[in-house]
Amino acid sequence: MSTSQPARSWVTCANDHPDFALQNLPFGVFSRQGLAKRGGVAIGDCIFDLQAALDASLFNGVARLAAEAACRGQLNDFFALGPSSRQALRSELLHLLDEASPQRERLQAMGSTLLVAQSECQMHLPAQVGDYTDFYVGIHHAMNVGKLFRPDNPLLPNYKYVPIAYHGRASTLCVSGTAVKRPGGQTLAPGAEVPSFGPSKRLDYELEVGVWMGPGNEAGEPIDIGQAHEHIAGFCLLNDWSARDLQAWEYQPLGPFLSKSFATSISPWVVTAEALAPFRSPQPKRPEGDPRPLDYLFDERDQQQGALDIELEVLLLTAQMKDHGLAPQRLALSNTLNMYWTVAQMVTHHSVNGCKLQPGDLFGTGTLSGPQAGQFGSLLEMTEGGKHAVELPSGETRKFLEAGDEVILKARCRRGGQVSIGFGECRGVVVG
Amino acid sequence: MSTSQPARSWVTCANDHPDFALQNLPFGVFSRQGLAKRGGVAIGDCIFDLQAALDASLFNGVARLAAEAACRGQLNDFFALGPSSRQALRSELLHLLDEASPQRERLQAMGSTLLVAQSECQMHLPAQVGDYTDFYVGIHHAMNVGKLFRPDNPLLPNYKYVPIAYHGRASTLCVSGTAVKRPGGQTLAPGAEVPSFGPSKRLDYELEVGVWMGPGNEAGEPIDIGQAHEHIAGFCLLNDWSARDLQAWEYQPLGPFLSKSFATSISPWVVTAEALAPFRSPQPKRPEGDPRPLDYLFDERDQQQGALDIELEVLLLTAQMKDHGLAPQRLALSNTLNMYWTVAQMVTHHSVNGCKLQPGDLFGTGTLSGPQAGQFGSLLEMTEGGKHAVELPSGETRKFLEAGDEVILKARCRRGGQVSIGFGECRGVVVG
Repeated sequence: MSTSQPARSWVTCANDHPDFALQNLPFGVFSRQGLAKRGGVAIGDCIFDLQAALDASLFNGVARLAAEAACRGQLNDFFALGPSSRQALRSELLHLLDEASPQRERLQAMGSTLLVAQSECQMHLPAQVGDYTDFYVGIHHAMNVGKLFRPDNPLLPNYKYVPIAYHGRASTLCVSGTAVKRPGGQTLAPGAEVPSFGPSKRLDYELEVGVWMGPGNEAGEPIDIGQAHEHIAGFCLLNDWSARDLQAWEYQPLGPFLSKSFATSISPWVVTAEALAPFRSPQPKRPEGDPRPLDYLFDERDQQQGALDIELEVLLLTAQMKDHGLAPQRLALSNTLNMYWTVAQMVTHHSVNGCKLQPGDLFGTGTLSGPQAGQFGSLLEMTEGGKHAVELPSGETRKFLEAGDEVILKARCRRGGQVSIGFGECRGVVVG
Repeated sequence: MSTSQPARSWVTCANDHPDFALQNLPFGVFSRQGLAKRGGVAIGDCIFDLQAALDASLFNGVARLAAEAACRGQLNDFFALGPSSRQALRSELLHLLDEASPQRERLQAMGSTLLVAQSECQMHLPAQVGDYTDFYVGIHHAMNVGKLFRPDNPLLPNYKYVPIAYHGRASTLCVSGTAVKRPGGQTLAPGAEVPSFGPSKRLDYELEVGVWMGPGNEAGEPIDIGQAHEHIAGFCLLNDWSARDLQAWEYQPLGPFLSKSFATSISPWVVTAEALAPFRSPQPKRPEGDPRPLDYLFDERDQQQGALDIELEVLLLTAQMKDHGLAPQRLALSNTLNMYWTVAQMVTHHSVNGCKLQPGDLFGTGTLSGPQAGQFGSLLEMTEGGKHAVELPSGETRKFLEAGDEVILKARCRRGGQVSIGFGECRGVVVG
């Protein structure tokens, strides 16, 4: 793909598509009306049906085996294969869908057997998630939240040494479009000495990127930082819905629990490590005085190209805005360059104690806020813990989420000389 | 089973067996040499093979359906059926294995097709665990650990209102007998300003009871405290191995992570709620001044019979003790009556935010220490954070675990007029 003119597809809706140009080719699990779940690849507004492609014998060798693993109702088996199989399949898909493909006429003749409109399909969770881990690598978020609790000492002493994380709840991961019911729970009202029970009054989102695990390791066998990239299958958007009032009351001493476990939304398309390769970046230089990562987390190649330059966006659409035909309002624009740790460092740290990572495990990065206003990935940060309201074009204001509010996350990679690619959307409407 | 003489079995090794009398009948997953995993029931030193029993048409109706669900390589489908199916199967098993069973001769003639020696079998994890949650309901443990960190204020203000818990790691749950490799990780040496990386020097066990979830709930639909018992399938022993030096450095602000996720051992037999029914007890009266549980956690019946009277024991056998033919040394004797919250309260609290519980989810109770010396469920408590060494009959001492140390958890229910039943063992040897 190093030609001066980027390749274009005979699936013409892919060319100049905001998310799913030929250069992206993310994997997902979809179903057509009344049919079983199966694997597919997004191209423009369509889904390339991998089972249909296999039925037509479009793949050979390793690519065929990879397509067989990816055409099922979950991508776990595909993730387990690792990079070389995934790359073989990607390479054949790039050729098949290229506007100069020798197979073009034959494929076009297959019509909607091969290429189905996304609008006619339902998307599902891409994999069965064995374990879901939520990190805390967004240093500006850690700083912003820390300031609310400890103004003089916002970052704890371990932050710049440890890629902090906690185990999340796998059973309530849900795909974009799933409504999110406001959770009930215990909260301690300001000034009260005794907690009360009721619906959360401080419901929030968190802008995160999700990371899908590939092959993984055996228990007791840590993944070396130099090999960590082989275990990263792909990426998605992740909204770590958070009930701040539940969180404040419950989280000491063992961390967030019910304040997070009611729902975590993810975008359905798995953007592969290969699609993101052109958007790799050196890990941003640590500020003067920050420690060098401990040896087990340090790899020269990872420092040089382990970061990702992905633009991240949060938008809000209230029920009233929808009624009035208003467009969603942008609440934040941020970037994955705000990560203090690389994804490879997250993988290596997670496994360094011998913890077993498995294909289809999911990581969240933690909230990826930027340092400035307009870049904050949660309402907690935007409103400084509910002190200031956000104003919306409908004349409404928000300190936290209300019934009917829809939160929309988006992500886009742009870089000179490269076709830009996106992640699609991660949406969720608050109910109750 | 309300006769004055407790029922005895024609499987004579079951009568007066320390763990697996006829009154117990716990479920588990086993394999004979080279064969696939399948479900069975412990009786004395034997396993009753459910598939063999089905092949011989020993069950009818609901009990047959339950046996079909329980004879597979995991008990998830069996747990999903809930109490009435489980009770139907138990009732038929009690009749079949009773010494007065009309089928006795036919069953005896089946020999090792039906009853296989436990010593000839390997045990496996009883279910595929979707999510594993570790609670903190042992108030004396919370107090003992809290004293180490906050001598004047050991219990945090939420403890007596919230059944505190955090998400644990499902992928490294392992069955009794699995060796536990000492984890590496970051620690901050006393007085040091910069952490270092290496093997944990403060490896510990935690004495817990595990709780297997039954049918569970749909996301967004909390389980009422009055119905919670219907979702409790059974119990096991659980050793929440803990690296205290990793834990101290990593756990702020999001809770324990790598200090726990390297291994969690469980005993293989699922002791059913029905087998434990005679050992129910009123929830111990809260000390004067403690708050009444909030309404959503309060149920009169649960208060009257929601607690369990199970004796818990920790033993240690070092490599040197083994070499010298010494018996394991008891480190602690405790009881589930040390739980501040009932299992029903744990279930209801976990789901009150809408979190989805699923068949085969596992809860740990948290460390169940008693208030006094000899009742502490971890070395952290016994040694007051490594201040005092424990003396062993071999002349060795321990502040934390060393290579070759085997930790053995046991549990037994005893009550006047009832046949005593046990949980079997949860064992694990430390490697490295």
